[in-house]
Amino acid sequence: MYVILEGIDRAGKSTQMKMLQSRLPDAVFTKEPGGTKLGEAIRELVLHGGEIAPIAEMFLFLADRNQHLNEIILKNNQKTVISDRGFISGIAYAHVKTGLPIKKLIDLNMTSLEKTLPDRAVLLKLSPRELDRRLPVQKLDNIESKGSEFLIRVQEIMEHTLKICGIEHIVLDASQSKEALNEKIYNFITKDSKWPQ
Amino acid sequence: MYVILEGIDRAGKSTQMKMLQSRLPDAVFTKEPGGTKLGEAIRELVLHGGEIAPIAEMFLFLADRNQHLNEIILKNNQKTVISDRGFISGIAYAHVKTGLPIKKLIDLNMTSLEKTLPDRAVLLKLSPRELDRRLPVQKLDNIESKGSEFLIRVQEIMEHTLKICGIEHIVLDASQSKEALNEKIYNFITKDSKWPQ
Repeated sequence: MYVILEGIDRAGKSTQMKMLQSRLPDAVFTKEPGGTKLGEAIRELVLHGGEIAPIAEMFLFLADRNQHLNEIILKNNQKTVISDRGFISGIAYAHVKTGLPIKKLIDLNMTSLEKTLPDRAVLLKLSPRELDRRLPVQKLDNIESKGSEFLIRVQEIMEHTLKICGIEHIVLDASQSKEALNEKIYNFITKDSKWPQ
Repeated sequence: MYVILEGIDRAGKSTQMKMLQSRLPDAVFTKEPGGTKLGEAIRELVLHGGEIAPIAEMFLFLADRNQHLNEIILKNNQKTVISDRGFISGIAYAHVKTGLPIKKLIDLNMTSLEKTLPDRAVLLKLSPRELDRRLPVQKLDNIESKGSEFLIRVQEIMEHTLKICGIEHIVLDASQSKEALNEKIYNFITKDSKWPQ
């Protein structure tokens, strides 16, 4: 089973990934961008490679996504694979940065994913107020250095894209306690599971 | 004016580019992949970055193409820009390597080129016999290490794609003398030109 954990920066994805790792020791934990050697190189280019045109950046992330599919997702298709971000982030950031239509971006991502969509998705959602409260805590990196208005717009597109792609998903209020949040994510991932955990 | 010089490896593109440089001192000479800082990094990744999935590689070249468009082509749109390779190579190699339909690949390239197609294209074409004669001379690199059958198939797709894209182009027999070839290319590029040379 292929699960993606989605949400804008500061929503608490890393904390939840760590908590899931201790509860699902046999699952495979990965991330986009950067779960492969090529992905790490692409991540490095985007963060420190100078000025990159928005559509060029989008194609770099699509390259990372296809490599991640072939190296991680398809090779572990008998296991539970949980990814910190996936194509939902890809579409949302690309839409806001390039202005390309969501339908077009879904099509580009289907090519990158060779039609292998995640089975389940979790979106950690922040209210604008909660995001503002959390934003100053951590220094923003290049990927998301656009402030809270930009991030809330990205989050809206994430939720919209999840709905129109027809993937089984839950949207969770990320401001609740990390323990309460983890319980809900864990239950959603493991319910009715025919996959070994 | 934006001109691309296309052809498989060994067709003599580099020699022709050098000859054109001395005849058109005010033109901008560039190449794909690799005419930009990002492009050089992508070229390095493809050549020495380990095993890359075919669709991931295609997206890396599409990223390079969009960066090249924004950094080189659009910034020099008052000049004659001559590029060693362009989207025709991109489509032909990607089709043979990934099996994606040419129509789909044209669409992906239109996104990368933000609909800025070259004004003119030159294809240097080798007969299979002439290619076999030239192949052992130079060590093949990673990008094209598939032998003459592969290259001839790529060349066929190049010619087919040029026809269906409706770009003004010439197909030249690359086995003629470099001087005769250069005269034809030069005349094609400079005819009726409203652009400064």
